[in-house]
Amino acid sequence: MKIACAQFVPAYRDTATNLEQIRKFVHGAEADLIVLPELALTGYFFQTKDEIAPLAETLDGALATSLSHIAEAEQKAVITGFLERDGDRFYNSALAFDAHGKLAGKYRKLHLFYYETQIFERGNIGFPVFSLSTTSGVAKVGMLICYDWRYPEAARVLALQGAELIAMPSNIVTTTGMLLTTLQTRAFENKVALAFADRIGSESLASESLASESLASESLASESLNFRGSSAIVDMNGRILAQASEDKEEIIVAEIDLSKTRNKRINPFNDIFSDRPSTGYGL
Amino acid sequence: MKIACAQFVPAYRDTATNLEQIRKFVHGAEADLIVLPELALTGYFFQTKDEIAPLAETLDGALATSLSHIAEAEQKAVITGFLERDGDRFYNSALAFDAHGKLAGKYRKLHLFYYETQIFERGNIGFPVFSLSTTSGVAKVGMLICYDWRYPEAARVLALQGAELIAMPSNIVTTTGMLLTTLQTRAFENKVALAFADRIGSESLASESLASESLASESLASESLNFRGSSAIVDMNGRILAQASEDKEEIIVAEIDLSKTRNKRINPFNDIFSDRPSTGYGL
Repeated sequence: MKIACAQFVPAYRDTATNLEQIRKFVHGAEADLIVLPELALTGYFFQTKDEIAPLAETLDGALATSLSHIAEAEQKAVITGFLERDGDRFYNSALAFDAHGKLAGKYRKLHLFYYETQIFERGNIGFPVFSLSTTSGVAKVGMLICYDWRYPEAARVLALQGAELIAMPSNIVTTTGMLLTTLQTRAFENKVALAFADRIGSESLASESLASESLASESLASESLNFRGSSAIVDMNGRILAQASEDKEEIIVAEIDLSKTRNKRINPFNDIFSDRPSTGYGL
Repeated sequence: MKIACAQFVPAYRDTATNLEQIRKFVHGAEADLIVLPELALTGYFFQTKDEIAPLAETLDGALATSLSHIAEAEQKAVITGFLERDGDRFYNSALAFDAHGKLAGKYRKLHLFYYETQIFERGNIGFPVFSLSTTSGVAKVGMLICYDWRYPEAARVLALQGAELIAMPSNIVTTTGMLLTTLQTRAFENKVALAFADRIGSESLASESLASESLASESLASESLNFRGSSAIVDMNGRILAQASEDKEEIIVAEIDLSKTRNKRINPFNDIFSDRPSTGYGL
């Protein structure tokens, strides 16, 4: 299966422009599955629910419908971050459309980062694994979003449910230097492939937000976030198969035989999953 | 606190020689705590219980008593792998002696590797965290052994119990290339320090073992294991502070302020431990 990650600058609060960018990337990527960044349709840096309310949509809304049409028209599976509305609640979600345009999977980010804690609800559907049809066959896929990268439990729960590929729409701002090291470890420790689609560029609050009375203080309002790019596709042995720059718009592609991830055996006596105690670890 | 890892070739089945090697390393290391490899008193590569029965000792036996005396005489804390007997059962254990020579902690390896599965019982005391007195203060310590490196759950359970340092007596034979990457991730994802003491050299079955009728086949008997060295001391940010070679006898030392590991906060909104769901992950 050919897997692509599209790395770009989502236009801030401009869903129409971002839909067209996504259409372009899905069309241009020579791949069966294209993974896009977190909140790829809206931009990322919001501090209040008032700011995101006009941008959030339900899964039967115009944006999700357009994404479905893009996948169907291009006959490619598409995974993207999505600012989801559910009544008066908002979730930092990821959606997966199969090559027929069908919504095959959804994840609501569980580990919320920074101001996300003020505007999104914590994900309440666990870590689902689903079958994703592509023109090169069906993949068992799980999704994580950005800050989930720090939590070995998240990737583990997906892998134990049979995920062969973890797709990670992200908007990473970390300066720890441990990002790729950790992603390699996540793939290796679970023997799964990993497609990490990150954004580039930076975001400060827009002028209309600066004028909003709902902002707590000017010092917060003037804050700016720099995104780290470095999108990567990692195989089940922790090897980086494709790697993007930190600051350029790029599509990276790698071909992976996902069926190999199903074998967790490393020698005649050890299987990294069945060697876990049947009672679990209490985590 | 100054932490050392001693990397060497344990003499195969020669506990007297290994006690003297350990005494020399503990004496020579300019450190408050010295970590030694897995099964450092006996050597590693055994295939049957008949082979290890004459080498295994209880914790009130002569070997553990000698280790206690070494720690007390040098006023240094000592952590070492230990082939433990408990009735007619055997455990691949790690023991921690404090700077007064008191046995402060014990761990029985839970994830057994390769032929260990045939001769040792799976560890049955979980992942204990204990207070270890040194001449530079008290450290909260947990221990893991070798193959445990692949299991994020093991380090996580220790860190959630308050471990500031994870000591890892090991006899690593992996050729994956992911060893140090994974150890860095273990430290980073838990914000704990890590002291990984590995052995060097290789072991085949000794001639007396080759003659034993208890061996399953000659093809097994002729097998040889190569150990990877690369002992390392890693800080809570995943940085390697000290690193040994793959094949030389060495003592590596690093000074770490373990109190910093107690703060799991990374920004005003996020704490990597309290951001975990209170319900856990079902792992």
